[in-house]
Amino acid sequence: MLQDYQLLRIPGPTPIPPSVERAMAQPMIGHRGSETSKMIQNIKPGLKKVFGTEQDVLMITGSGTSGLEAAIVNVVKPGDKVLVVATGVFGQRFTKICQAYQIDVEEFAVEWGTSLNPTAVKDYLKEHQDITAVFSTYCETSTGVINPVDELAKAVHEVSEALVIVDGVSCMGGIETKMDEWGIDVLVTGSQKAFMLPAGLNFIGVSDRAWKVIEANPKKGFYLDLTKYRDNLEKDTTPFTPALSLLFGLEQVLKNLEAEGFEEVYKRHALMRDMTRAAFKALDIPLFTTDADASPTVTAVKPVDFDAEAFRKVLKTDFNLSVAGGQQHLKGQIFRVGHMGYCAPTDVLQTLAAIEIALVKVGKEIELGKGIAAAQKVYLEGANN
Amino acid sequence: MLQDYQLLRIPGPTPIPPSVERAMAQPMIGHRGSETSKMIQNIKPGLKKVFGTEQDVLMITGSGTSGLEAAIVNVVKPGDKVLVVATGVFGQRFTKICQAYQIDVEEFAVEWGTSLNPTAVKDYLKEHQDITAVFSTYCETSTGVINPVDELAKAVHEVSEALVIVDGVSCMGGIETKMDEWGIDVLVTGSQKAFMLPAGLNFIGVSDRAWKVIEANPKKGFYLDLTKYRDNLEKDTTPFTPALSLLFGLEQVLKNLEAEGFEEVYKRHALMRDMTRAAFKALDIPLFTTDADASPTVTAVKPVDFDAEAFRKVLKTDFNLSVAGGQQHLKGQIFRVGHMGYCAPTDVLQTLAAIEIALVKVGKEIELGKGIAAAQKVYLEGANN
Repeated sequence: MLQDYQLLRIPGPTPIPPSVERAMAQPMIGHRGSETSKMIQNIKPGLKKVFGTEQDVLMITGSGTSGLEAAIVNVVKPGDKVLVVATGVFGQRFTKICQAYQIDVEEFAVEWGTSLNPTAVKDYLKEHQDITAVFSTYCETSTGVINPVDELAKAVHEVSEALVIVDGVSCMGGIETKMDEWGIDVLVTGSQKAFMLPAGLNFIGVSDRAWKVIEANPKKGFYLDLTKYRDNLEKDTTPFTPALSLLFGLEQVLKNLEAEGFEEVYKRHALMRDMTRAAFKALDIPLFTTDADASPTVTAVKPVDFDAEAFRKVLKTDFNLSVAGGQQHLKGQIFRVGHMGYCAPTDVLQTLAAIEIALVKVGKEIELGKGIAAAQKVYLEGANN
Repeated sequence: MLQDYQLLRIPGPTPIPPSVERAMAQPMIGHRGSETSKMIQNIKPGLKKVFGTEQDVLMITGSGTSGLEAAIVNVVKPGDKVLVVATGVFGQRFTKICQAYQIDVEEFAVEWGTSLNPTAVKDYLKEHQDITAVFSTYCETSTGVINPVDELAKAVHEVSEALVIVDGVSCMGGIETKMDEWGIDVLVTGSQKAFMLPAGLNFIGVSDRAWKVIEANPKKGFYLDLTKYRDNLEKDTTPFTPALSLLFGLEQVLKNLEAEGFEEVYKRHALMRDMTRAAFKALDIPLFTTDADASPTVTAVKPVDFDAEAFRKVLKTDFNLSVAGGQQHLKGQIFRVGHMGYCAPTDVLQTLAAIEIALVKVGKEIELGKGIAAAQKVYLEGANN
């Protein structure tokens, strides 16, 4: 095997662009000095654009899960009752965190592979006016579903005083998001997906409504207390030592997104989704979600006549190409192809070409090149628009 | 355009593997200290393997052309008469260097796109016993031809005392080479092709026969005097300050080649050549060389019904994918696709997928996916062997 060669097409972590690698390799600086403050000043406007918010976006050093936990411990007061709309593993994670804090949590389970229905949530809330917060997932990484969090927020606010808290980890930066306009109260994302960075940073947007709740919350832990992050961010600093190399990288990522143009970034992700889906359709291999529910960052595929795990193994052994398997009851039932962040349409074509070879090697009867041709056609049509 | 994204498929420079980038980023060290000596000791055995020689391989800091010039100024004495067997631009470069030194040079011109004929050279030498050196090119980068330098050396030695000097710049490291066994007297290569390094280093192998000629040569310049390099290399050092970061990188490259296995490296290059050629054949686009003459590192293609330059422009504009155009009278007549060094079969598939799209965009009627399918079949057959 060609040494160093790595095709990383899991739904995060994702490949790091060279300019970001170089930025992260800068020598350490003092995190209380003016250089760090200047860097934080540079970072603020870009993060606001990604979130679609006028508020400063908080940065917490930690895995994505610490960001989800921060959302919960800050907005949920003792005695509150909350609703988790769970469309997969990461929806369930909200429930598990709530349970760890002995929070009174109801899980509104949605069939895996489909998106949540805002009207159904609305109907539930009408009957349950005691719910103070509704948690859900923007892109459900485990199923490749994108949830209509804009409609969800609207529906919730129509019938309830509950806050709307959204996990945007596996799509933000790859899809247009309008936190303020949509009325999302707390929006969390992580660094290792469409942000093209290693894991280790969370970004959290908080609405005015949510700040009121947070300020009134007497018990919000120590490290994850968002008021500390807000008060420090106003002074261009952080409450605790930040992962500085990730901040170096983030500053560069935001420059790169600006240089490509945010609209172009979102179009590229939509194009990569459409190319990927067209290929599997042409090969007659079922997709796990409908077109309407499909995430622009990860595509889940449901093989019916070949072994997903054997197939993934060929991709890894022959090409050092990683795609993800299914989680929990979907283990062995689906595989998931990431197409986000530092990923171009030519990377999608490369992945599909390798996938076709692996399909042949696991005994699936396909016409070689047919999936590629379908993806190429989508590119040509998209490029002509 | 996705920032940083670069698909470099010209026949050199070629992409640098991440471990080599990291190695090159090491802090500078003293070039006369024990660390540099240790590094040179580590480098020697690997270079010998690439060259197929028992002699230590010299290292000169400079572009490839300085290596070719070194070969000439060291082995050609005043009054000598030499023959250049020129199969393209880089064969001609030997002639031009000779002319700059007012050396009595004959150019044996071979039609561009075909390989040299050892018997023809042999016949010429029978009639010209005053020739003291025969220069030729292993892979002629300008045409994608691989020359039978093993047969050439044998043919020359059968009828002549002339030294055989070979430019191996654009293929060595990607094809098996047996300098000693084949009887090549001076073999030169550079760092920026299958060696996966930036340009700036030359590697030169010299036979015992050639050393005798060099030692008897009274006028061999200063910087390029190979005896200086030999005498210093015996003491694990260099006569002049070397490009240290490239040596850091070279040490890592040789580790990587060893880890993959030299045989595997050469098989990978042959496979990438066969995949590339199969694709163009399937698309009915003429190749510029026969299969027998085809280089494992670069493929030249001769479009007859589309504009090569417009096609290259689409690749660059749409995908930031660089393939090379033709040189001199082949400008606009051919294009050249590199597949060497840090390049995997999946990179070939990616390049071909982009090429098919670009063909459609310049108006060439093709069946999308057909070239890819042919390349995939070659991979599957190769992988099953």
